[in-house]
Amino acid sequence: MEKLCVHTMTTKPWSLDDCARHYPAAGVEGITVWRQYLEGRDPLSAGAMLRDAGLDIVALCRGGFFPAKNATGLQAAIDDNLRAIEMAEALGAPQIVLVCGAVPGQPLEESRRQITEGIAAILPVARQANIRLAIEPLHPMYADDRSAINTMAQAHAICDALGSPAHLGIAVDVYHVWWDETLEAQIKLAGERNRLFAFHVCDWKTPTTDLLNDRGLMGEGCIPIRKIKSWVNAAGFNGFNEVEIFSNKYWSMDQNEYLQRITSAYQQHVL
Amino acid sequence: MEKLCVHTMTTKPWSLDDCARHYPAAGVEGITVWRQYLEGRDPLSAGAMLRDAGLDIVALCRGGFFPAKNATGLQAAIDDNLRAIEMAEALGAPQIVLVCGAVPGQPLEESRRQITEGIAAILPVARQANIRLAIEPLHPMYADDRSAINTMAQAHAICDALGSPAHLGIAVDVYHVWWDETLEAQIKLAGERNRLFAFHVCDWKTPTTDLLNDRGLMGEGCIPIRKIKSWVNAAGFNGFNEVEIFSNKYWSMDQNEYLQRITSAYQQHVL
Repeated sequence: MEKLCVHTMTTKPWSLDDCARHYPAAGVEGITVWRQYLEGRDPLSAGAMLRDAGLDIVALCRGGFFPAKNATGLQAAIDDNLRAIEMAEALGAPQIVLVCGAVPGQPLEESRRQITEGIAAILPVARQANIRLAIEPLHPMYADDRSAINTMAQAHAICDALGSPAHLGIAVDVYHVWWDETLEAQIKLAGERNRLFAFHVCDWKTPTTDLLNDRGLMGEGCIPIRKIKSWVNAAGFNGFNEVEIFSNKYWSMDQNEYLQRITSAYQQHVL
Repeated sequence: MEKLCVHTMTTKPWSLDDCARHYPAAGVEGITVWRQYLEGRDPLSAGAMLRDAGLDIVALCRGGFFPAKNATGLQAAIDDNLRAIEMAEALGAPQIVLVCGAVPGQPLEESRRQITEGIAAILPVARQANIRLAIEPLHPMYADDRSAINTMAQAHAICDALGSPAHLGIAVDVYHVWWDETLEAQIKLAGERNRLFAFHVCDWKTPTTDLLNDRGLMGEGCIPIRKIKSWVNAAGFNGFNEVEIFSNKYWSMDQNEYLQRITSAYQQHVL
């Protein structure tokens, strides 16, 4: 069960307290906290509660969504990301996952420019707080409204454009990038440039019946998870393997039973 | 309405006779025929019927699906493609669109190798029949079971690997490739290598509620169709603009009314 981290969104029906109680009991060692789980709570005490439960806080999820149609929207996005940095610092999360954003109909190159500028604007604050920012390339099927950054190459381009700052890197989620023939090379490059910050696992089911919430448990689909993990490890990554599954099907079942399936799938198809 | 072609699958509820009657009446000049519309018909007389109706036959759709788990499956795929070439020749279609195929769980590189070998096997027959083969890169969300060729770069790689034969080229469908930051360069390259064989249009809706059958009418989504068309035309393509829409929503409405919407969207968002 080594290095197993679960995203709170994976067990969506559970509260943060439920996660703190059930994750360690199942052998889960790490947790990535989605921001909505901290609504109405003090992040400082939430962080202490998770650590007291024996969990490593791997990341806060998610910042980003930089693109907007006007200056007000762009500034609002930056302000929101600055709040996320504050929240991560209080929680004790060492990094924030960035889902970069997109505005339907706005040229992708314009969104990419806004994303680069947005990251540039928050980077000094992140550095000061010692919070790392991990750009997560999203599958091209989310290019319309979730992220204009759809490949590792594009994530690298932003890191390069900003001068390869130490606090900026990439989160590799197998669901988003498994199809890319350049993936191995891009992961290797991320290792060389010290920007391989996170590794997320789940699986791609055939058929996939929903663009958002029909991800599979590891082993249920076609993604060569172990092969990609070997590339990530060869590139020097030795952090947590984060299980991030959005699934109407799994959210509707008993979450303790589901967590058992997760740990079992983790042992069979990730380790 | 110049250069407007409609795929028979776009107006799925209609038979080939319905298409022959209604397309020209609406101003449609070209037709791409899906193979199932020829089931139980003589392709020679079907072709004559379409031409008599005033339609240009733009392509036969679709060949491909080369990958398989064993030699029997691989040979069956080649045989099927040889039948498609015969059918295209009888119909009078100058080219076949190739949806290349994939086997869930089989490494994509293996599928790509099988695709390359499959095309190599049928190419001499296609050349002899003077039928062009157009590789259609499919969106990465179809990499599991529909096509291991998901970018223009991969389509180019196959054409290059086979020595750039004159009868092998690429079909650009905006739905599949709009998100690719290298798209303009890839289209330009396709022009330079005389392999830009087809241009398909529709739109990407936000939200998209079905991975297969929720495509939008041109103008309904976020794809910069005119911009991509300008690249295609700048690269020397002056063939038909093919409307290929799979949509449960549109298939359930009156198809004549839908065809009016198609011609209107074509004038407003493509020409």
